[in-house]
Amino acid sequence: MHDVAGAPEDAAGDVTVLAVPVRALRDLVARARGGVVTDVGSTKAAIVAAGEAAHGGRFVGGHPLAGTERAGPDAASAGLFRGRRALLTPTPTTDAAALAAVADLWRAAGAEVVEMGAAAHDELMAAVSHLPHVVAYALADAVGSLGAPAGMAGGGFIDTTRIAATPPGMWVDVFLANRDAVLRATSRFAERLEALRAAIDAGDEDAIRACIDAARSARARIVG
Amino acid sequence: MHDVAGAPEDAAGDVTVLAVPVRALRDLVARARGGVVTDVGSTKAAIVAAGEAAHGGRFVGGHPLAGTERAGPDAASAGLFRGRRALLTPTPTTDAAALAAVADLWRAAGAEVVEMGAAAHDELMAAVSHLPHVVAYALADAVGSLGAPAGMAGGGFIDTTRIAATPPGMWVDVFLANRDAVLRATSRFAERLEALRAAIDAGDEDAIRACIDAARSARARIVG
Repeated sequence: MHDVAGAPEDAAGDVTVLAVPVRALRDLVARARGGVVTDVGSTKAAIVAAGEAAHGGRFVGGHPLAGTERAGPDAASAGLFRGRRALLTPTPTTDAAALAAVADLWRAAGAEVVEMGAAAHDELMAAVSHLPHVVAYALADAVGSLGAPAGMAGGGFIDTTRIAATPPGMWVDVFLANRDAVLRATSRFAERLEALRAAIDAGDEDAIRACIDAARSARARIVG
Repeated sequence: MHDVAGAPEDAAGDVTVLAVPVRALRDLVARARGGVVTDVGSTKAAIVAAGEAAHGGRFVGGHPLAGTERAGPDAASAGLFRGRRALLTPTPTTDAAALAAVADLWRAAGAEVVEMGAAAHDELMAAVSHLPHVVAYALADAVGSLGAPAGMAGGGFIDTTRIAATPPGMWVDVFLANRDAVLRATSRFAERLEALRAAIDAGDEDAIRACIDAARSARARIVG
């Protein structure tokens, strides 16, 4: 495994892993050299199309479900992928050997490999990853605008907005690269928020409790 | 410090700490006996009124900014309050000695004591605590309704919805006890969410970035 900048053109057998914000990926993928090319981008449909256009069956779309709000080499963590899932999005074009090489790489890092289609990946990520970022940014923005004083946060605010500490570069790209699915997920969230708001407004204990119960069982199921 | 159930009527000098959901508090506070009476409820205006009606200056409203999504004796944690803030809401009626006794209790548990008015407390908590719970419940509910499969959550979803694992009893009470302030905070959040949604819909990178920047600086300030 080596960085794209130093990749020799005849490095067949190596796996080149591209890890840059998703809109940069679509350009970078065409310039990658080497045997198998994969990526870790948070959206997959457009990147897989660009990857296969450049590399055919030797491109394998990938996305590990792990990360932190920190960026740069100092944020490296050897155990980051241990016990987490690595999603791979092969197509009928994908070489079996290329897929196996990328899957082995993720297993070596401690991850469990799960395969799915690129479109299904993007719809799923809009719900479980991109929407939480939209919500966390809007929440931190709103609480700030409500005039909360410095240092006056409990664990709920701290956890709920942890991912809102993430720098904008990556997420501007993700929101735009997966715009339609992100908008659908955000609209669904706005509907559920309004249902809970209306229940509180009406003093309707049963309706509040129904929303909380649905939230708790959904979370328990999704977190697994 | 003793439990209200076993409180002797002549236990002057002791501090009775009431820790039940906030709507139960308003009834329980009238039945407490002993010297100083305080509570740990998440809303303060109605409880302070009930506490002073029953105990005059010997009631001191309190609220430690600490807790977890778990409930019951097995969730006890000796270090829970260490380094956290304990908010106290004295009024012109409050005895100075009662306030000092309650403040000493929280300092002994490792907390930093901060005094504020009950109404200001409730408005602040609507923003930094109650709103994050509304949002976390609505988010887990929405992601569940979007059909996310079991076990398919990254750290973002897990953290953002951690407080949505909290059982409903406490939060139905809090949302209703602090309804007006919770509704105001929720409306502000819905506005900020819609601004970010519209920016994504329009593909307006500058507007997305402005929301993210506002969120990041607000979070850094509030977390302190």
